[in-house]
This record gives sequence, C-alpha cells and structure tokens, in this order.
Amino acid sequence: MNDTENPYQAGAAFTQDGFVPIGEAKISVLDWGFTRSDCTYDVVHVWQGAFFRLGDHLDRFEASMAKRRLAPPQTRAEMEDILHRLVAMTGLRDSYVAMVALRGRPRVGGSRRPADCDNHFIAYALPWIDVIPPDVQARGGHLWIASTPRVPDASFDPAVKNYMWGDLTSGLMEAHDHGFDTAVLCDAQGYVTEGPGFNVFIVKDGAVLTPDRGSLGGITRRSVIELCLDEGIPASVAPITRQMLEDADEVFTATTAGGVMPIARLNERILGNDRPGPLSARLKNLYWRRHADGWHRTPVRYDAVVAK
Amino acid sequence: MNDTENPYQAGAAFTQDGFVPIGEAKISVLDWGFTRSDCTYDVVHVWQGAFFRLGDHLDRFEASMAKRRLAPPQTRAEMEDILHRLVAMTGLRDSYVAMVALRGRPRVGGSRRPADCDNHFIAYALPWIDVIPPDVQARGGHLWIASTPRVPDASFDPAVKNYMWGDLTSGLMEAHDHGFDTAVLCDAQGYVTEGPGFNVFIVKDGAVLTPDRGSLGGITRRSVIELCLDEGIPASVAPITRQMLEDADEVFTATTAGGVMPIARLNERILGNDRPGPLSARLKNLYWRRHADGWHRTPVRYDAVVAK
Repeated sequence: MNDTENPYQAGAAFTQDGFVPIGEAKISVLDWGFTRSDCTYDVVHVWQGAFFRLGDHLDRFEASMAKRRLAPPQTRAEMEDILHRLVAMTGLRDSYVAMVALRGRPRVGGSRRPADCDNHFIAYALPWIDVIPPDVQARGGHLWIASTPRVPDASFDPAVKNYMWGDLTSGLMEAHDHGFDTAVLCDAQGYVTEGPGFNVFIVKDGAVLTPDRGSLGGITRRSVIELCLDEGIPASVAPITRQMLEDADEVFTATTAGGVMPIARLNERILGNDRPGPLSARLKNLYWRRHADGWHRTPVRYDAVVAK
Repeated sequence: MNDTENPYQAGAAFTQDGFVPIGEAKISVLDWGFTRSDCTYDVVHVWQGAFFRLGDHLDRFEASMAKRRLAPPQTRAEMEDILHRLVAMTGLRDSYVAMVALRGRPRVGGSRRPADCDNHFIAYALPWIDVIPPDVQARGGHLWIASTPRVPDASFDPAVKNYMWGDLTSGLMEAHDHGFDTAVLCDAQGYVTEGPGFNVFIVKDGAVLTPDRGSLGGITRRSVIELCLDEGIPASVAPITRQMLEDADEVFTATTAGGVMPIARLNERILGNDRPGPLSARLKNLYWRRHADGWHRTPVRYDAVVAK
C-alpha cells in the first residue's frame, strides 16, 4: 500500500466503532472514562519495528485495571493482538501505542454505580514523537520545581497510570510561566515525586536515586535501574527530599515517549556546565544502544493487518 | 414536531461537530480534556421549563475556566444561547444541562504545552434523572464515610468543578461494597469534605453546617443557605470533623441533579427514626416549593430552535 493512500498513516485506533483512522477515534461525552476520569491507560513504544517491553506494559495495565475494577471484554491476548494490528495498519516502524480501559456507561439508565457500567477498551498507534523536542534534548532540559503539591498516594494510587493530571498541569503551566521546559512536583511533606508523564532521577556521588513515593512505577524507570545494575552503578528507589534534588550532581528524567532525558537547569541552578551530565548522558546512550541489541524486543506482527 | 420523530428526544449536544443527537456527541481520544482531564464543567437543571440559577452556574463556570486558563472561542452570551437551544431541541420541560470547557489539542504537532492548545466548548441537555433514585429519596439515603482521603485543596482547587473523581470513585465503590448508597470523604486531617457530586450538611441543635474545605462551592449548597437565612435557621460554612458528622442530629446532601437529599443512615448509625430528619425534610420541601414560586428562574427560550 502506498503511504500517500494509507488512511491510517497519521495513526490508527480501535474504539467502540472498531478500527478507525485516528481522526475518527472518539468516545462519548457521557463515558465515565471522561466525566469521572474513571479509566486507566498505558503507553508502549515501538522502535525500529518492535515493541519495547510489551509484556511489562501489559502486566502493569492489567494490574491497574484490577485495582480500579475495570474489566473490558477483551482478553489480554486479544488486546495484544489489537496493538500489533494497529501498528501494522499504520505501517510505522517507530510508534507510540496507547491502550485505555474506560468505565463506559451504566447499563441501567440513571445508575450512579461503577459496577453497573459496561467497561470497554480503546487503543491507538501514533507516529513516534519525542515528548522532549530534539533541541531541548541536545541542550538538556530545564526543570522547574513546582509549588503545587502532588496528589497524595493515599488519595489516588500513583502506580495506577491515570489521566487525572490537574496537579501536574498546574505545575507545567507554572514551569512555562518561568520559561522552563517542564516541572517536577514534590508532595506536601517536601519529598520529590514525578513530573507530567515522567519519573525523575538524581545522581549523587556516583549513585542513582529515584523517588519511592508519589510516582508511577515507570517501565523506563525500571529499564534505567536494570542498566545501572548491569553497569555496576549503585541505584536505588528511596525517599528524595527537595533539598537532595537541589544538591544533586546530576538530574535526569525517564519516560516511554522519550527515554532518558538529562536535565541542565533546575530552577535557578545550572547543573554541571549547563549541559547533560556525564552519567545521565551515558545512561541515555546505553538505553538506545541496548534497544539496537534487541533488549526486551517484541517484533511487531506487520502481517497482522493482512490477516484481518 | 412529534416526540417519536424528534431525534433529540434522548438528548441534544453541541460539540466540535455542531449540534448533534446525544448518541453522536463525542470527543477525540486525543483531546487533553480526556487524556489529562484538563477541563472544567458545570451542570444546571431545568425544572418546569426554566433554568434554575443559570447566571450563578455561568458565573462559576467562567471562574473555573479562568483558574485553569481555559478559553473556548464562544462568549458567555453565545454559550448561554447554546444551552437554551439544546433544551429547546429536546423539547424537555425538565432537564439536566451540562457545559464543559476542554483543553483540546495542540495546534503545534508534538507540543506538550497547554498554551499551544485550541480550547473548545461542548454542552448537552439530557432528560432529568434524579441522582438519587426515588425509593432512596423516600427512605432517606445511606451514607458511608469513606476511608480514602479527599485530594487536598492545595493539589487541586475543589472550587473548580472537575472530572478527576478517582478518590470519589474509590469512596463510592467502598460504599457499595458495604451496601450503602453513596459516600462522603474526609480529608487527611479528618475534616469532612464532600461526596461524589454533592455537598454534605449536618444539623446540630437546630443549626445547619456545611464544610468549609475540600468542597465545591455548590449552587444548591448556596440555595440551602439562602433558604436557612430566609427561614431564620442558623447556617454556616465551617470546619466539620468526622466526629461532628457522626454526632449530628441530622445529615443531608445537596446537588443540582437531585436537590436536597436527607440521610437516614451513616455507617452503622441510624439517624432519627431511620427516615429523613425534620429539618432536612423541611428544607427539601422548601427547595422545590420555591422553584414553583419562580425562584432564580430563567425561562427556556423554546423558540430558539425555530430561529436556527
């Protein structure tokens, strides 16, 4: 199929309407996935024709659905099949693939009970776009420590990947107001948590640390820790105070949609020489080199689209 | 138009697709109003052909949009016109009318900046359905004090009506697990806040109190306080501890979609004679009687649909 003729070139989606071009991928304005943000999601990336850690993403997605009592009709195998097929439909070699489980709407008119709803599954594959623009990646990100406290773990489990970004969006707008690229939030007790869509790491005296609270159990975070173990770099998940962040030798972030991202500025502080720190840059390079080596790789079944 | 022929009988909506039957009212799965719950909403009711406190709802909606830097292209007058027209299209005399301002999607591909998004406005009118079923209204609601702490005001301003219901949904599921109708949440400091979609009130020694924190500034709440003032009943917005709630003489809730709702059971405690308390029932009756008297009434412009 010629790319210019492929209606899925800009992205393909699976919704309650079946497989559709991304421009037609919609949900009802009455879906509780929207009106109560009663849903959970996950995002896996495809790099050079293969999913990265697909099984880990599906494991996390299943755990999140269970915690929120979301049970779409598809089995895990069926969901996985839909993800392959979506990428195959786009023909993309590098893609960003999202899956969402939504509460849906009550079977019984007027019910306000989550248990009365028909849950459903949507997914979509989009062309890969770095969360962090290439020029920002080259110079190192500018990270703002936001004044808005992160929603506490007790109010909503941050291990359930969710769309309730109000506190993160407030932090992001504050960062932009100060001319920064993005924000990291601390909790009300002053411990570092995460930013909008990424985990944060500090490097201190050669050791790598990432927060033990207020954060998603990121798959890229896990990859970074594995890389550290492989390389003999001490790495731990631990409490990190705002002061520890401010006093770090290096800071970097990690996300599925961008990988490892070194930070060059933290509020008024310029880290190192205003460019990516050496250990951060090393981990970033390793992360992609290991991709090329076939690390945690699940080749996309591009023939899936033919087998429709 | 014959009701059986009206395609808007089940509800009418205004979306980016224009005016559509409610079944076709959808948003993109990529809209940040969904993927970041980056939106605010309001709901006004229509009773016997007239909006109740429409100006107050629009005031609150405008204030919420400003706080979240949401600026859809419509003016307030245009939004108001859309609301009238939606009700007129349905032909409903009793309706529940929602308006939502969404962040939309970035104008610039790949941008992660809220300021780069084209915000938009959607609205819909649905047949009136009591949030609380009639049989529950007659016996008095059974309210569960949830163990999940309400998201703190510092993390997200509860005066901005929002769809980030994760904590409320957790409380609601816990209430249902215990055989209760709905839940009220306390904050981490043990103060009573609100429930999923309603404010809560206590009556103690003849005085009415409602929480000063963790709560939406409800329009029905305001109406209840006005009724108390008119009737010479002491009413205040004040800190309410969980203990005060448990020791209350009466408890009731208030919401646009159901009005005043007396509570008959609170966890293991049976209030009064396991039926609506006298002051709660009086306020409930007054609330509707005042509607009939034309209180805060804005007649729906049913001719709006003709003027299309």
